[in-house]
Amino acid sequence: MNRIYAVGIGPGSENMMTAECRRALSESDVIVGYPVYLGLLPEEFAGKKQIGTPMRKEKERCRMAISEAAGGRTVAVVSSGDAGVYGMAGLLYEMAAGSDTDIVVVPGITAAVSGAAKLGSPLTNDFCVVSLSDALTPWEIIEKRLRAAAEGDFVLAIYNPQSKARKDYIKKAAEILYKAGVEKDRPAGYVKNIGREGEEVFTGRLCEVAEADIDMFTTVFVGNSGTKLLQGKLVTPRGYK
Amino acid sequence: MNRIYAVGIGPGSENMMTAECRRALSESDVIVGYPVYLGLLPEEFAGKKQIGTPMRKEKERCRMAISEAAGGRTVAVVSSGDAGVYGMAGLLYEMAAGSDTDIVVVPGITAAVSGAAKLGSPLTNDFCVVSLSDALTPWEIIEKRLRAAAEGDFVLAIYNPQSKARKDYIKKAAEILYKAGVEKDRPAGYVKNIGREGEEVFTGRLCEVAEADIDMFTTVFVGNSGTKLLQGKLVTPRGYK
Repeated sequence: MNRIYAVGIGPGSENMMTAECRRALSESDVIVGYPVYLGLLPEEFAGKKQIGTPMRKEKERCRMAISEAAGGRTVAVVSSGDAGVYGMAGLLYEMAAGSDTDIVVVPGITAAVSGAAKLGSPLTNDFCVVSLSDALTPWEIIEKRLRAAAEGDFVLAIYNPQSKARKDYIKKAAEILYKAGVEKDRPAGYVKNIGREGEEVFTGRLCEVAEADIDMFTTVFVGNSGTKLLQGKLVTPRGYK
Repeated sequence: MNRIYAVGIGPGSENMMTAECRRALSESDVIVGYPVYLGLLPEEFAGKKQIGTPMRKEKERCRMAISEAAGGRTVAVVSSGDAGVYGMAGLLYEMAAGSDTDIVVVPGITAAVSGAAKLGSPLTNDFCVVSLSDALTPWEIIEKRLRAAAEGDFVLAIYNPQSKARKDYIKKAAEILYKAGVEKDRPAGYVKNIGREGEEVFTGRLCEVAEADIDMFTTVFVGNSGTKLLQGKLVTPRGYK
């Protein structure tokens, strides 16, 4: 049976990859991915056949991977973070269904987890992960989920908060949270370029984050009603007395 | 300044640790943790001073770590999965606040991510992580969050679903989800002992998961309204046409 590894490489730096991630990449004949992420791979994999396809060409990337695998080559499709969290794993399963291809997901450190570690410990209680990208999800559904997250008093980790084409989305999201009862001074923060060059870390209040200059390489965190700022760190209590 | 690493070792197998996790453990003079997780560490760390404290003794564990660090030793406090997701990082920040201790969180692969990889790709869209343990969170809040998760049409990853002392909690949770509109045949699944001896993987319907013999080492997944069972895998579409 042909094999495709859907590999999460973590935030990007080599030291955040798992041993299993490196093993899957070593075993693969071909590595497929968004060129920026291919560029983050350790040098030892530079000699492998690499296929880069641009952003928004995810289906093409999967087709290429499936066709390479059909040719008898072991293929790794790399995602930053984890391959399953908004990554390529789902699309690979959908597109390879019915073919003789075995999809193996190799998990990685997703931005909710790596970003949280930079900010302190915001996710030490129940949390939601929401992407603000309305390229694939209608905005009404995103809005409904933000409201539900606030109503459930979840900590929120927000992926893809905004981009050049989607300006002010984090401000729009904050307005929805305010209406659902989240205070403007709710502890919040963000991490830009986690573990990579240009890393930028901020902790403060939601109203500050809503006005910040953030981009699609930023992960935003909004605390729950118990989250505190402790010596500049975002800390959500677990509930110990 | 004294240093404590809050280290996530991932699901347990050595190949799921990051290089940074091993580096932090190597650098540490003392490793503190729940004995089961200390037992999962690679042999190379067996020569280090190890301090095991029983379950539910988390505050004691933190006190010991802070006191070891105050003695000038570098300390690693290990959690399974990630140190921030229901892990020891939050409590360490709270208890070390005001002392001259630097807490550094070293992220790990949390069960939502490692479990999802075993089941297919359930988390390829917005999701919630909820713990059913009411030891530290009142049940009414857990109930409110389950309802909010259903109302937001989130995929759900459930930690600590039940234990000997908390029987039938997953059944109780399923009843709450049904009332909030989730169908009994909603695609769902679970993974027991992820990546460890005795690993057990199930995908099927929520009503089957609600009746399954699961324990506190199990992570449960409930799909959103779009999640499918594809050749036995749980797959949540991202929204590609």
